[in-house]
Amino acid sequence: MSYINCSAQELEQAYAELKNQYEDEKGKGLNLNMARGKPGSEQLDLSNSLLDVLNSQSHCIDSNGQDFRNYGVLEGIEECRRLFGDLLQVDYHNVMVGGNSSLNMMFDTISCMMVKPIEEGCEPWYKVKNRKFLCPVPGYDRHFGITQYYNFEMIPVPMSSTGPDMDMIEELVAYDDTIKGIWCVPKYSNPQGITYSDETVRRFAALKPAAKDFRIMWDNAYCIHDVTDTPDTLLNIVEECKKTGNEDLPILFCSTSKITFPGAGVAALAASEKNMKVILERYKYQIISYDKMNMLRHIKFFGNYEGMLEHMKKHKAILKPKFDIVLDTLEKELVPVGVGNWTKPNGGYFVSIDVMNGTAKRVVQLCKEAGVVLTNAGATYPLGKDPKDSNIRIAPTFPSNEELQTAMNVFCVCVKLAALEKLLSK
Amino acid sequence: MSYINCSAQELEQAYAELKNQYEDEKGKGLNLNMARGKPGSEQLDLSNSLLDVLNSQSHCIDSNGQDFRNYGVLEGIEECRRLFGDLLQVDYHNVMVGGNSSLNMMFDTISCMMVKPIEEGCEPWYKVKNRKFLCPVPGYDRHFGITQYYNFEMIPVPMSSTGPDMDMIEELVAYDDTIKGIWCVPKYSNPQGITYSDETVRRFAALKPAAKDFRIMWDNAYCIHDVTDTPDTLLNIVEECKKTGNEDLPILFCSTSKITFPGAGVAALAASEKNMKVILERYKYQIISYDKMNMLRHIKFFGNYEGMLEHMKKHKAILKPKFDIVLDTLEKELVPVGVGNWTKPNGGYFVSIDVMNGTAKRVVQLCKEAGVVLTNAGATYPLGKDPKDSNIRIAPTFPSNEELQTAMNVFCVCVKLAALEKLLSK
Repeated sequence: MSYINCSAQELEQAYAELKNQYEDEKGKGLNLNMARGKPGSEQLDLSNSLLDVLNSQSHCIDSNGQDFRNYGVLEGIEECRRLFGDLLQVDYHNVMVGGNSSLNMMFDTISCMMVKPIEEGCEPWYKVKNRKFLCPVPGYDRHFGITQYYNFEMIPVPMSSTGPDMDMIEELVAYDDTIKGIWCVPKYSNPQGITYSDETVRRFAALKPAAKDFRIMWDNAYCIHDVTDTPDTLLNIVEECKKTGNEDLPILFCSTSKITFPGAGVAALAASEKNMKVILERYKYQIISYDKMNMLRHIKFFGNYEGMLEHMKKHKAILKPKFDIVLDTLEKELVPVGVGNWTKPNGGYFVSIDVMNGTAKRVVQLCKEAGVVLTNAGATYPLGKDPKDSNIRIAPTFPSNEELQTAMNVFCVCVKLAALEKLLSK
Repeated sequence: MSYINCSAQELEQAYAELKNQYEDEKGKGLNLNMARGKPGSEQLDLSNSLLDVLNSQSHCIDSNGQDFRNYGVLEGIEECRRLFGDLLQVDYHNVMVGGNSSLNMMFDTISCMMVKPIEEGCEPWYKVKNRKFLCPVPGYDRHFGITQYYNFEMIPVPMSSTGPDMDMIEELVAYDDTIKGIWCVPKYSNPQGITYSDETVRRFAALKPAAKDFRIMWDNAYCIHDVTDTPDTLLNIVEECKKTGNEDLPILFCSTSKITFPGAGVAALAASEKNMKVILERYKYQIISYDKMNMLRHIKFFGNYEGMLEHMKKHKAILKPKFDIVLDTLEKELVPVGVGNWTKPNGGYFVSIDVMNGTAKRVVQLCKEAGVVLTNAGATYPLGKDPKDSNIRIAPTFPSNEELQTAMNVFCVCVKLAALEKLLSK
């Protein structure tokens, strides 16, 4: 029976039972982790032959005589730029392939705009007092971390099932030229797994920000990361921006971190010619060239974009059961008692749960004490401050299925226990 | 006969002969490059088995259960930190291993100090008007590029055979707290191949800069890169700084770019605990982790530091004849006519030549027109401005020995021709 309809006595009884259950779980000495979006080892094994495609006999020289073992080719090797062009659905001329981390490329891009204006006539952001950045919430803690590092005021923008609140965004950016950008994970958003609707993408493309140097940080981290047979589709923002004359608005990012190896993948960014000019001008001083051998490794491993899509089906086969375990357990344990709301994503790496208001921190603490590590409560909000203390991000990919089931059981016990503590003012 | 002792008529005759020689060379349609310090393909081949040490059957998990294919271990894997600790002669706890580029780590480090104070109570450098950086000249253009990007005023400090002018440095830093650092290549300096004397290192360690956040960017790029059988030795600056209580003064950098593959090596930095704390605080926001698989590849390839030293002997065997070609040709062609001064380095990647004052640009232009590309004249000075227009950096590593001999012949013709043009006011 839903807690909301229970008598005080019934709640006390439920609490006593759950408390026992919790102590049992605690006694098991578990050591499980659902904190970060890390692929599991079975997923990593899918890419092991990435380590076989290059050996000492390999030909590492391209048709222009460029030896990939040596210095050179700042923008990354052409075949790899083409591959990421296909992935991001943009012309490869607008793509730069970098090191192993798209987060690093985002950090570099913000760092660049901090010290050099991306738009002629504008101030570098470091000189803009009260600079602000829009942060769809719940969102990705490491995005917020970058703008935190650079002392932006971060304005939370609520997410709905179609993406961030576009009414709010349009209104905010129209008048305030100290708002310099927004963090977006447009497909299978972190943590909710929401894909922006066509209308949302069109409204982004049609934005008329007061700040000429306003930029959309379009982190397409999960662009081909489906986990069901009914995948979402995302409208191509670059094409939409061409229609509105807003080509310079978005800067796109992606990587193979969750396609091949998180520790040894390849990342890329794409942007308009004008944006690329400013960004490359910084990279020219920053580095001679990134690891072209690892780019070559990825090209040889995938063959082409279709090969990459085929590879993703293997990830899906591993991840679907994990997402099923999470969603089935939530359904079975939390629906009857009427506690919690969660998303049912078609892709990405997370399930986002809103537990009873004011209990998220307590749930994370209870889980930790029972040996199940979750992402810190509040991590999905700028500066780690979730005003309702309700959102928790579940990362189901790293544990084995068996461990995941155990961890989810513990999690649901903790969600209910924390709710009852609150209802009973314990 | 030395040009200085020639009559006008003799000079005219020499000019006519050289002009003919030059036109001959020009007619050959050469396409040679001595511009950058790029290893030649024979050198790259030495490391081809780096591509064999990891394959799909490799065990990539350390004793703590850390899977090197996955996210994690921001400071780099311990074995690799130990290897770079040996290379830089510092405790590995003070070492961070990064991506493939030490230049990038230097850029990151300066970028860090631009926005966050490295020393409590100091301003971030971005807020320091008239910020300045000391630049030993001739020096490395990409170092100067970083401080140029961040709008430092760059103060040239002349090099002598024992290192930069320490009298000048001591005097400058003692009174001016807007001088925030100095670029150093302490062993086999770029471009002269000079190794700082013990006294120079001790004086660096004993500096008392007015700016508490003054830092020595100690780029030990050529620490084990000997090219003769009489290698130089460099005093350990970290040990010297311990004696003077100046542990926070130096930040050390190095990489395997010129040990394995420039495009796919591993870079590292080392610094005091206090410096590392500030630097890592930035990296924590910037990236989750660098490419641990490539670190593992390097560990497996070298085994240990002794293995790395053995490997360097193979480089030396390839490079010694190249340096001999350069030095022998200069000796043979330029000594008789009394034009030019140059260094005879025991290691590193360059030979630095001072041609007749006011002719360096002309020499580079003449070479270019004859199909031999050199580093731009002036590149070894901040903002590319060599006040005497005399320094040229020769990079002998990339061409084959035969090509190098041809290129050096052309070079010497051009040096003499430019000198004669000047003497004859042509």
